[in-house]
Amino acid sequence: MSAPLQNDSFLRACLRQPTEHTPVWLMRQAGRYLPEYRATRAKAGSFMGLATNRDYATEVTLQPLERYPLDAAILFSDILTVPDAMGLGLSFAIGEGPKFEKVVRDEAAVAALEVPDMNKLRYVFDAVSSIRQALNGRVPLIGFSGSPWTLACYMVEGGGSDDYRQVKSLMYARPDLMHRILQVNADAVAAYLNAQIDAGAQAVMLFDSWGGVLADGMFQRFSLDYSKRVLSQVKTEHEGQRIPRILFTKGGGLWLDEIADAGADVVGLDWTVNLGRARAQLGHKVALQGNLDPNVLFASPDAVREQVRAVLDSFGAPGPNSGHIFNLGHGISQHTPPESVTALVDEVHTYSRLLRQPHGG
Amino acid sequence: MSAPLQNDSFLRACLRQPTEHTPVWLMRQAGRYLPEYRATRAKAGSFMGLATNRDYATEVTLQPLERYPLDAAILFSDILTVPDAMGLGLSFAIGEGPKFEKVVRDEAAVAALEVPDMNKLRYVFDAVSSIRQALNGRVPLIGFSGSPWTLACYMVEGGGSDDYRQVKSLMYARPDLMHRILQVNADAVAAYLNAQIDAGAQAVMLFDSWGGVLADGMFQRFSLDYSKRVLSQVKTEHEGQRIPRILFTKGGGLWLDEIADAGADVVGLDWTVNLGRARAQLGHKVALQGNLDPNVLFASPDAVREQVRAVLDSFGAPGPNSGHIFNLGHGISQHTPPESVTALVDEVHTYSRLLRQPHGG
Repeated sequence: MSAPLQNDSFLRACLRQPTEHTPVWLMRQAGRYLPEYRATRAKAGSFMGLATNRDYATEVTLQPLERYPLDAAILFSDILTVPDAMGLGLSFAIGEGPKFEKVVRDEAAVAALEVPDMNKLRYVFDAVSSIRQALNGRVPLIGFSGSPWTLACYMVEGGGSDDYRQVKSLMYARPDLMHRILQVNADAVAAYLNAQIDAGAQAVMLFDSWGGVLADGMFQRFSLDYSKRVLSQVKTEHEGQRIPRILFTKGGGLWLDEIADAGADVVGLDWTVNLGRARAQLGHKVALQGNLDPNVLFASPDAVREQVRAVLDSFGAPGPNSGHIFNLGHGISQHTPPESVTALVDEVHTYSRLLRQPHGG
Repeated sequence: MSAPLQNDSFLRACLRQPTEHTPVWLMRQAGRYLPEYRATRAKAGSFMGLATNRDYATEVTLQPLERYPLDAAILFSDILTVPDAMGLGLSFAIGEGPKFEKVVRDEAAVAALEVPDMNKLRYVFDAVSSIRQALNGRVPLIGFSGSPWTLACYMVEGGGSDDYRQVKSLMYARPDLMHRILQVNADAVAAYLNAQIDAGAQAVMLFDSWGGVLADGMFQRFSLDYSKRVLSQVKTEHEGQRIPRILFTKGGGLWLDEIADAGADVVGLDWTVNLGRARAQLGHKVALQGNLDPNVLFASPDAVREQVRAVLDSFGAPGPNSGHIFNLGHGISQHTPPESVTALVDEVHTYSRLLRQPHGG
């Protein structure tokens, strides 16, 4: 039996139920900007050493909650665990992004792809169980995965990219191969998220970090359709509890109507989107998550508070059947001063309570 | 006296006048993907050696016109000539992007900025005159500049960036300093574009390459307002000829209505924008330019032609008082096979003529 949840504001906001304040968590909240994270990372020796060890993963997941009254925890892991389990050989060189030993660019490599045995990802599910137990009902735990398209970008490029030349070349030249990669990815991601839910994840998020680099028309066919394929297979309930699903497309602001119809309960927004306009457009069917520019956190605490209020004002006063989860529009930078996050979280809680008072705001 | 213009389809489309085909040119059409460009570059020794020499600049500007029946030429230069003339010391290391010797991050550096003496940019205006003469009326010549915000990104970061941390930190922490940089940039860019027009540029384009990285609200205040300030000072006529003005904001698709009201005749679009929707929204007040993903050019000639038709179909059949200039949604990649451009230009001309036939399309 799990401990009863003491703070369910995040789950309630996801389902557009009333909350006393706007819940807040931050993408990459367990990360390099925290000295305690860097200390654990040093003990673990490498990023994958950290991510694959249940005890370390639990430790770093809980670190930001010790510092800040955040309303949700998110599993500490990487979006590329699934292609790693497919045998592509993920590594992280110091000071660089992720690299795959094998790239998927030709017919043979595509044909060899299959949904990996979920036992290869056991370390992730073990971490989920361990974190859930350590949280002891404090706040809900979010599980996650990269979207099929975002995983495909890394699998074809072999790492990060600034022009997506390889993956787009394959998509335009051999759409059949790209569709096959995306089918395998979608089925793998669905199984992966379901196993996280079985292990204790109370909500799940799909990161379509690179959906926004696609052309109109191609986004729908090569990214969104496969996110839908994932969501259609991911369970919506576990042990009698609703499991909210969040879909975040960086740079997806032009396709919000279509994204909101993909089957998620929550649509994640980056800072280019006007939150008030998005609420008017979508607020009756999904909750919204976002959307402070993480670079705001390099300004003074007063400036941080001002920009936090601007985001909350942009969403507007909470109303019936609307939901907002405060977040950044992208992962927090490793260079962020930790005291900026103190100001952010405090201002979200304080000001959003004020907006809920009869004559507040 | 200049030679009369033999092909004015580009200028006509900018002003939403009828044309027999959709005019086409490509951002960075004179560039590294062409072997003849690389040969001239080698003779010149360095990128700045190329850009500052009138004869070389003329030679490379005309190279793509020798290969392809493009409908416009664009001055060969760099968007960072203006901050270089401000004394920041621009250089290009091999295989890297632009670098400034001095960065503009503090009160003293901002206070020292001023609109540079346009004589320091004489090499650009000389190149414009020389190119105009060499074109001999074949197609019109486009002049250009980076937008005030885009120039500021490079001036504060000291070069390219993937997170815009320095420039956004300054903007959030010291908006007063950022506004002062942008004022100086806007006045300098306006003087620069006017001098290009005086030297022979028949249209001008403002590249807001990094406007799309700003948050909603900040884009309007820190990028668009200063593009407006430029456009309000740039002449609309020269020697009795209208000088069309193009404003291109990469990633600006969410702000098209506001961009279309900035004072430009043409709005440039990247590939994330649905061209048909943009036409319905803006087509009565501005012409549209764009928007093929340059990565399409890595596929087969047949696939290139198919995607070109998709862009033309998305804009739809030409009608009265509408204008479309075919272009990429970003500069052409140095890795592009030159024969892909042959297919692109031919398909734009052939298919757009077909769309203009009474029962075409």
